[in-house]
Amino acid sequence: MAITYELLHVCKQSGARLGRIHTPHGVIDTPVFMPVGTQATVKAMSPDELHAIGAPIILSNTYHLYLRPGHDLIAEAGGLHRFMNWSGSILTDSGGFQVFSLEGLRRLTDDGAEFQSHLDGSYHFFTPEKSMEVQNALGSDIMMAFDVCSPYPSSYEDVKEAGRRTHAWALRCQKAHSRSGEQALFGIVQGGMFADLRRWSAQTLVDMDFPGYGIGGLSVGEPKPVMYQMLEEIMPILPSTKPRYLMGVGTPDCLIEGAIRGVDMFDCVLPTRTARTGTLLTSKGRLVVRNAAYARDFGPVDPDCDCYCCRNFSRAYLRHLFKSEEILAARLATWHNLRFLVHLMEQIREAIAQDRLLDFKDEFFTNYGYSAENPQMTY
Amino acid sequence: MAITYELLHVCKQSGARLGRIHTPHGVIDTPVFMPVGTQATVKAMSPDELHAIGAPIILSNTYHLYLRPGHDLIAEAGGLHRFMNWSGSILTDSGGFQVFSLEGLRRLTDDGAEFQSHLDGSYHFFTPEKSMEVQNALGSDIMMAFDVCSPYPSSYEDVKEAGRRTHAWALRCQKAHSRSGEQALFGIVQGGMFADLRRWSAQTLVDMDFPGYGIGGLSVGEPKPVMYQMLEEIMPILPSTKPRYLMGVGTPDCLIEGAIRGVDMFDCVLPTRTARTGTLLTSKGRLVVRNAAYARDFGPVDPDCDCYCCRNFSRAYLRHLFKSEEILAARLATWHNLRFLVHLMEQIREAIAQDRLLDFKDEFFTNYGYSAENPQMTY
Repeated sequence: MAITYELLHVCKQSGARLGRIHTPHGVIDTPVFMPVGTQATVKAMSPDELHAIGAPIILSNTYHLYLRPGHDLIAEAGGLHRFMNWSGSILTDSGGFQVFSLEGLRRLTDDGAEFQSHLDGSYHFFTPEKSMEVQNALGSDIMMAFDVCSPYPSSYEDVKEAGRRTHAWALRCQKAHSRSGEQALFGIVQGGMFADLRRWSAQTLVDMDFPGYGIGGLSVGEPKPVMYQMLEEIMPILPSTKPRYLMGVGTPDCLIEGAIRGVDMFDCVLPTRTARTGTLLTSKGRLVVRNAAYARDFGPVDPDCDCYCCRNFSRAYLRHLFKSEEILAARLATWHNLRFLVHLMEQIREAIAQDRLLDFKDEFFTNYGYSAENPQMTY
Repeated sequence: MAITYELLHVCKQSGARLGRIHTPHGVIDTPVFMPVGTQATVKAMSPDELHAIGAPIILSNTYHLYLRPGHDLIAEAGGLHRFMNWSGSILTDSGGFQVFSLEGLRRLTDDGAEFQSHLDGSYHFFTPEKSMEVQNALGSDIMMAFDVCSPYPSSYEDVKEAGRRTHAWALRCQKAHSRSGEQALFGIVQGGMFADLRRWSAQTLVDMDFPGYGIGGLSVGEPKPVMYQMLEEIMPILPSTKPRYLMGVGTPDCLIEGAIRGVDMFDCVLPTRTARTGTLLTSKGRLVVRNAAYARDFGPVDPDCDCYCCRNFSRAYLRHLFKSEEILAARLATWHNLRFLVHLMEQIREAIAQDRLLDFKDEFFTNYGYSAENPQMTY
């Protein structure tokens, strides 16, 4: 077994899980937030800095690395860990989400998906077997099955058909996966916003016995209460002995709400993407540091934060860097936002251990400014 | 006295000087290369990284900081050191070079220079007094006098007139400088490419008794042998008890040739600017890492280099980062180029101490690939 999961404690107040995932590259305390390193680098960050903020695992994108620099080249370099000099764990997605999100999707059959490269317009055909070949070459600790992600909204029939393909492909992925001793393959639960299809998808994948489960096709535009409802449908079916990964979700409220519903792993590009435009997460809510209000504000971005940015630089300086389009602006803001989320996960784990995650949620939401008047923001 | 200079040793083989400058922010071993931090940040680098590569002093640009964020704001932050969180020494230029290099220069009189902001087209008038006011507000360890830099080529009469103004302004700078206990003001030797004007300018400034001397108006397009000749004209006049700073010069050959002629301080934007486009300095010459030749080259940029980039990443990875336009590309390349030059200065100082700087020059040039066939590159 490439990875193992230990369930350490279940929060008596919320039902959230405190756990630990052991991978060939270390131990991951869960619930965990995974920074996204699309092109074999978490934008603006060095591997040392990722270690410094306390990130034990990052995500990288199969689709992007397949196109550039190519999985063969990365295999030749000794795998993705060595190529990018990251000694922690890596999870790779299957490429499916990018292929289906792209304008470039050309043709979808039971065999696979044909798409056009966003880089040079060249044609490529991805199948479950191809996705496994690429991810095996990359050598990630956790691989994801090649799945079909339905857009929102989609009809019941379309979602069911996508689920059927997803399940068939999951089986083909299991068969094609050639390094199960070193790399764990997670199945992905689909089923759109239909409770029975979600339960059906979860049960089908559980019967295939994966070492962990991704929950895909959520956070694609639906209201947050719908997403939470879908999680609640799935969770009783998923085995408590395996990690659950809610894909593409990473706003502070969703991290807490997801943990409450039994999610162990999260990822999202938003904290790094918004950092690069100057939007910072703080314990008092979002802070748009370009605003004129901060021109002469010589205090830190977040007085409660222990990151390199907050310990050493002021809002006024950060604003100056953004106005001047300096690279250090993106660096410091990214560093802060990632540390903010890693620290939030530390707080969530501590609250689970103390059986008070619901109390923590109330405190955090009050401080952050989430409110009932803004339900989409809250839930 | 804000700064003091200790002359430790003169190389018996070359005449180069080994020394030490004491500033309110530390000790600087000379000859030294100063990284350029135009907008209160050395592009792509953090202050911690500058310490890590061994840079004791950086340069920042008065013109840019005056326009954005404004010297008043920086003074309010507690000065430039605190604003940018740099505990080492800082040298600020006078703004003159930018004003005269700009398309925006509108009017030059004995009083000062009117120019248009490159940011918003607004009009500004810089005088020696204004330059001192701004630099006093920034609180740099070493300030430069507001001077007139002649373009190359210029007529004898024009250069003489520029020299006359430079000298008059130097005197006004001395009078306007209000923090001489904490900040040292350097005069700037001009005189274009005319030996007698260079000697005249040097003697005039020496008579004014500055704590150090900049050598301006070189490396503006003239052949390198002409620059070296001008240095040779000036050096016997400058007092051996004061540091000499060759402004805007920082290619490896010029650093060595400058040191041989008695220069103690250098700065240049080229190593950082070219780094951001993927041109790297190595002991075997320049390396354009975007080249296809490096796609599968898994060795370090420079096997002889001890920097973070060379110890941890391959040419293939760096090439991938540049092709993917990742921020980490600019970071690693800048880190390497700056460390390369800081290390070169360490080697130069060691060679001076051992009375073998001419031997070192021959070794370095042979390795680097400087040759007599390419005299502009060599000299």
